[in-house]
Amino acid sequence: MARTSSHATGLRVQLPPLCFLFQAAIIILFSFFVRYNHETDSSLWHRSNHSDMDNDFYFRYPTFSLQWSTLVQGFFHSFHGGKIYIGVESMINADFCTGAVLISFGAVLGKTSPVQLLLMSLLEVTLFGVNEFILLNLLGVKDAGGSMTIHTFGAYFGLVLSRVLYRSHLDKSKHREGSVYHSDLFAMIGTIFLWIFWPSFNSAPTNTGDGQHRTALNTYYSLGASTLSTFALSALLSREGKLDMVHIQNAALAGGVVVGTSGEMMITPFGALMAGFLAGIISTLGYKFLMPILESKFKVQDTCGVHNLHGMPGVLGALLGALVAGLATHQTYGDGLKSVFPLIAEGHRNATSQAVYQLFGLFVTLVLASLGGGIGGLLLRLPCLNSPPDSQCYEDQIYWEVPLEHEDEVQEHLRSEDTETQA
Amino acid sequence: MARTSSHATGLRVQLPPLCFLFQAAIIILFSFFVRYNHETDSSLWHRSNHSDMDNDFYFRYPTFSLQWSTLVQGFFHSFHGGKIYIGVESMINADFCTGAVLISFGAVLGKTSPVQLLLMSLLEVTLFGVNEFILLNLLGVKDAGGSMTIHTFGAYFGLVLSRVLYRSHLDKSKHREGSVYHSDLFAMIGTIFLWIFWPSFNSAPTNTGDGQHRTALNTYYSLGASTLSTFALSALLSREGKLDMVHIQNAALAGGVVVGTSGEMMITPFGALMAGFLAGIISTLGYKFLMPILESKFKVQDTCGVHNLHGMPGVLGALLGALVAGLATHQTYGDGLKSVFPLIAEGHRNATSQAVYQLFGLFVTLVLASLGGGIGGLLLRLPCLNSPPDSQCYEDQIYWEVPLEHEDEVQEHLRSEDTETQA
Amino acid sequence: MARTSSHATGLRVQLPPLCFLFQAAIIILFSFFVRYNHETDSSLWHRSNHSDMDNDFYFRYPTFSLQWSTLVQGFFHSFHGGKIYIGVESMINADFCTGAVLISFGAVLGKTSPVQLLLMSLLEVTLFGVNEFILLNLLGVKDAGGSMTIHTFGAYFGLVLSRVLYRSHLDKSKHREGSVYHSDLFAMIGTIFLWIFWPSFNSAPTNTGDGQHRTALNTYYSLGASTLSTFALSALLSREGKLDMVHIQNAALAGGVVVGTSGEMMITPFGALMAGFLAGIISTLGYKFLMPILESKFKVQDTCGVHNLHGMPGVLGALLGALVAGLATHQTYGDGLKSVFPLIAEGHRNATSQAVYQLFGLFVTLVLASLGGGIGGLLLRLPCLNSPPDSQCYEDQIYWEVPLEHEDEVQEHLRSEDTETQA
Repeated sequence: MARTSSHATGLRVQLPPLCFLFQAAIIILFSFFVRYNHETDSSLWHRSNHSDMDNDFYFRYPTFSLQWSTLVQGFFHSFHGGKIYIGVESMINADFCTGAVLISFGAVLGKTSPVQLLLMSLLEVTLFGVNEFILLNLLGVKDAGGSMTIHTFGAYFGLVLSRVLYRSHLDKSKHREGSVYHSDLFAMIGTIFLWIFWPSFNSAPTNTGDGQHRTALNTYYSLGASTLSTFALSALLSREGKLDMVHIQNAALAGGVVVGTSGEMMITPFGALMAGFLAGIISTLGYKFLMPILESKFKVQDTCGVHNLHGMPGVLGALLGALVAGLATHQTYGDGLKSVFPLIAEGHRNATSQAVYQLFGLFVTLVLASLGGGIGGLLLRLPCLNSPPDSQCYEDQIYWEVPLEHEDEVQEHLRSEDTETQA
Repeated sequence: MARTSSHATGLRVQLPPLCFLFQAAIIILFSFFVRYNHETDSSLWHRSNHSDMDNDFYFRYPTFSLQWSTLVQGFFHSFHGGKIYIGVESMINADFCTGAVLISFGAVLGKTSPVQLLLMSLLEVTLFGVNEFILLNLLGVKDAGGSMTIHTFGAYFGLVLSRVLYRSHLDKSKHREGSVYHSDLFAMIGTIFLWIFWPSFNSAPTNTGDGQHRTALNTYYSLGASTLSTFALSALLSREGKLDMVHIQNAALAGGVVVGTSGEMMITPFGALMAGFLAGIISTLGYKFLMPILESKFKVQDTCGVHNLHGMPGVLGALLGALVAGLATHQTYGDGLKSVFPLIAEGHRNATSQAVYQLFGLFVTLVLASLGGGIGGLLLRLPCLNSPPDSQCYEDQIYWEVPLEHEDEVQEHLRSEDTETQA
Repeated sequence: MARTSSHATGLRVQLPPLCFLFQAAIIILFSFFVRYNHETDSSLWHRSNHSDMDNDFYFRYPTFSLQWSTLVQGFFHSFHGGKIYIGVESMINADFCTGAVLISFGAVLGKTSPVQLLLMSLLEVTLFGVNEFILLNLLGVKDAGGSMTIHTFGAYFGLVLSRVLYRSHLDKSKHREGSVYHSDLFAMIGTIFLWIFWPSFNSAPTNTGDGQHRTALNTYYSLGASTLSTFALSALLSREGKLDMVHIQNAALAGGVVVGTSGEMMITPFGALMAGFLAGIISTLGYKFLMPILESKFKVQDTCGVHNLHGMPGVLGALLGALVAGLATHQTYGDGLKSVFPLIAEGHRNATSQAVYQLFGLFVTLVLASLGGGIGGLLLRLPCLNSPPDSQCYEDQIYWEVPLEHEDEVQEHLRSEDTETQA
């Protein structure tokens, strides 16, 4: 591990001003436009009725994007009288948007600088808001767990962007991309954490009552089935029948992605198991066979394999959602139809046209994500942004003060410092 | 660390077909028998009254056993009209069952193959369902946090099974069984996680209201007391007065196990402290003195020491539950008697006979666990199951693709690969 | 890493008796004084009305202090008729107290023995209870998230104590104080965990409804802003523009501390962003510039930098709380005034005098914390307590059985043991 980096990252000149600028802009915008909504404001609460929202879980990521997305989403969803009214639901929505941004990060991680990632967030959050508004409000598409709005959008935005940023000499950094024993264990903690919270994640925006129960249950069984099929396929595809940590860490979660759209619908426990099973298979096959082809033939360098965990399972989830929506009947859903498919319940649509709208939503998502990723990629290729050179990719210490690996090294380092001082 | 394994694990030939077979069987059984229950079904919800279940926490483990246990438990508990109706409660019950399976895994880990563990789950989940049905439904035993049904059952099932699989030459793998510095820190994260969620775990199946409050509170104080007594005893038992990570990681949790049965009863805060204090003592003594004897004299090789964390504290918890049940009076419980001890409240039993039933429940659990573990052990000794050889136990890389330990090694490995290619 | 320690720690002689003594004392006190309250007692629940407390999250730490604090706080808050009545709220309060103790630990960690820490808890928990009682009950100060009672109190108690324990030759252990690569990743898991739960932490003791929503929201935006300003400043302050893990791990959380008092008030989303932004700046500057000065000029050796994360942001939070309280009007709060500022709503005070009381609360906290830390430091300097020698600080293995670092070492160790046996 080289201890010095000769590459001028420009981080000191660019990152702080950008952060401060963005933060100042957001603070100013907040001061003019953002107010507590009726469930959060002390004086409004006591004058109105409340949905008794059960906010037992907030998933949040420490980035700029959640502040920005509050503004963007707020503009589309809760803008009236010149103000944006925010509450706990705004927070959850902002988190979901940040989820999409993190998925896109997965495709370009290690090859981009913090400044590039910050600019990328700015663009993606904006487009995420546009796409979500078109799907949920204009098209009346259902997508509670975000198979389309979060996973498909995030994955293809990142993949197209990664394509535009293609580096033909990335093999110079190849030795750093792999994992080591301990980093694999760390990643496993993340997997278990995601596994545990995925049912809450998918069910958070659905209706309290049967909706949340059903979504949690479906997600749970789908995750179980995808885990099992991943273990089976991982052993089957290895020459010696060994399990691959990368498959287990990722494909085991594909079951959560694939029921993102249909989780709140009546897909039946059987349907959830089938969906998860398929998602695990597709995702593992993607890691094993499709990912190398994507890089060699299509010049898409997908650092974390987001195409396998979010791209394909997301599209599959969207298609599944369309199928299940097309099969909806008054009999199956009973009085619940008006919360799951309000437009069908009110007679504005029949099940088939809902299915067509769902498919159209997927199409819009793919188009917007690709366009956005393309524009983003061109933007990030601006030379002034100082992306890391080919030989420095996947290297923590370009952007981070990295401590020494072992205590022995630390002692040696201190000893040599002492010698220098004495000389 | 040897990089190649000459042992043919048979994993590639056996694991995938078994996984696929089990998954297919379950999917088919689900399609015929499993339906959403009235709290999860869209059309049923709007026609019925609901218990307002507060499902703030789902603990779940990524295995086959939770699907299978849904079927087994569903068969016993919610089978009517030829269908099994499932909801969030089924999920929690399936998780608890999976907990017992994981406890048993703890006794045989490192000495068994994934295929063996899969078969073991199949058997144990079935017997867990039988045991739970006998205790809770036939005998009217109270065991919310599962001192008997989860901890005692899981521990003795695993221990008897480990006895049947006894390997006299396991010392060949002795150098791999120990922990290293970083793995100890990892394990500590798990301990903290379990500590934090144990009160929720014990109180999840109890009645909303005073029941859940009381169970959480008792578990919390019991955990506190067991942690303190573990620290004290660990320092006392060490020659130099040093604390032992294995004691802290495990015995500190014994307080959660020991109030599994009595947590929802009126054991008083004082009683909870006493119980936890005792459990910490017994568990630490178990690690220090009993575990080596178990191996040398009784030929039980207990990899993770489940006898100390789950076996003994589980039995102690069952006895404590019987004691507290025997002391129940109408005066102490007031109107709450009908939720804690419905059979006493309705006059079908007095407190003493409830205590006797509790003891009988412990006896049934021990018998079923031992029988099941014995049968399971004989099954797992079938030669076609390819258990790992004595010299390869506790070795990740028989069954996993293990990355290299350090970046230096990775670079060296790549360099040698380059040389090979050039040659 | 030396494998043997010649320093006699006295741990074996002192820790166990102290633990047992304290535990016995607490058990006896519990048996005489502690009872379930009306929300936890089976017979009382069914005779009374209940606040429907939403206890979705219990943060708890495995120490003696939570049992002791139950007694101390119970004495002040729920002592009537000679008994202390406890419930879930007592648990949360005990946890908060334990939080303050852990903050103080951060200032002296690595330089004190477990026995010293135990005695320190005993004193600090008692004084925490006194301070909290004065502030909340006597002065009518608002401090839901504990900017004053938890963060300011914990930080200055620990810092003054650390000053009294000043060691002029601590540089002998300097090489062990730094972090290594893997320990930094571990610490990052803790940071993410705290980030995620901080909104729940601040909002847990506030009023259900708009109060909890508002506190969670404010905490969330404040955390977001402090994270952003920390990233910006960390890059700006580094010579090469690199980010410093220590800043990210700590200063990113300052936003949670700074809205501890004002989080439940109507500070507006804009105000929360500003507060978090400032807290991140101050905290990062503290790590970079103030911390070395504190050690060299003021002889305060602050192991974890609690002054930067808890001390300064805590004081800033208290001042902010006073400011926002001073601006409170009936118009802004509406009917909610009686839950946020009951004394103003009932006409006993106006907003300005509430602000003065808030400031006085901060003053009392600082005085009590400093006095307590001073007395505690003198107590801990008693020679019989065997604090570790200067050359053995920050060393795990004085008090812990530390396993070997790598498997290779383990094998070598076993081999040399074999040789010894043969010889």
